[in-house]
Amino acid sequence: MEIDSLRKLYVEELKDLYSAEKQILQALPKMAKKASNTQLKAAFTEHLRQTEQQVQRLEQIFEALGKSPRGKKCKGMEGLLEEGKEVMQEDMDEETRDAALIAAAQRVEHYEIAAYGCAITHARVLGLEEVADLLEQTLVEEKHADERLSTIAEQEVNSSALHVTL
Amino acid sequence: MEIDSLRKLYVEELKDLYSAEKQILQALPKMAKKASNTQLKAAFTEHLRQTEQQVQRLEQIFEALGKSPRGKKCKGMEGLLEEGKEVMQEDMDEETRDAALIAAAQRVEHYEIAAYGCAITHARVLGLEEVADLLEQTLVEEKHADERLSTIAEQEVNSSALHVTL
Repeated sequence: MEIDSLRKLYVEELKDLYSAEKQILQALPKMAKKASNTQLKAAFTEHLRQTEQQVQRLEQIFEALGKSPRGKKCKGMEGLLEEGKEVMQEDMDEETRDAALIAAAQRVEHYEIAAYGCAITHARVLGLEEVADLLEQTLVEEKHADERLSTIAEQEVNSSALHVTL
Repeated sequence: MEIDSLRKLYVEELKDLYSAEKQILQALPKMAKKASNTQLKAAFTEHLRQTEQQVQRLEQIFEALGKSPRGKKCKGMEGLLEEGKEVMQEDMDEETRDAALIAAAQRVEHYEIAAYGCAITHARVLGLEEVADLLEQTLVEEKHADERLSTIAEQEVNSSALHVTL
């Protein structure tokens, strides 16, 4: 039985998040390029800048731990982005593609909401309040990004896509 | 440009969810078996029964559409469950494994929260209120399942895992 295993799990979770964020960094420019609605394009571009900061926060945490953030591939995010790629390759009108891009991006946001939520809880159990607060900043950003996508879907994209449908 | 493409996207989303739920049906018994905490075991077992109902709801919707729910593999869920499998294979004490199982399960729940959320929005835009209400029942169940896991983590599992750590 490993004495320090909750701490080990917590470090693995941070590595998983680091891999997830790095994959998202690769995907967001493609999603922004594929988006037609200007607000959606802006949301993806701004979230890219936010993601860069989130990666830096994780690097800062790993530096304090004296560990490397690398060495783990987040398979969950790999699958989610694979799904997103399929959407981008399918033949559909611009408005429907925007709706599909939002659906793919919200799956990604929710992965992060779950994953940061768990990592924060484990950090607090381990008494690492400062790290938890730093991760909490990212969690708040992910929740806002998710809400912003919902708003764009409801106010802009879905009605345009329906307009194409009718 | 495809005239009925928002509707097509919506049907694809339902197929994605059907594939996701069927994969979850396979995974939950294994997760219940691996869980040590009795409340966590019960949560997984009860969610298995709920998932069976959720699959039936999707089948009911597809029957009304006169379409088959099959033919799509949800790669997002495949990746998430792949990650969960890794957790179950790693060498760790019971308490930490429970914490890791919860983290994996909450990623799955959040996938469903995002995916049902989008499908419901699209159903409403298409004027399919009855289907949206049926999917909403599932969404509420998924949110409750996620909250229950958080409660079990906070009240039971994390403190046990910490107890092992100290």
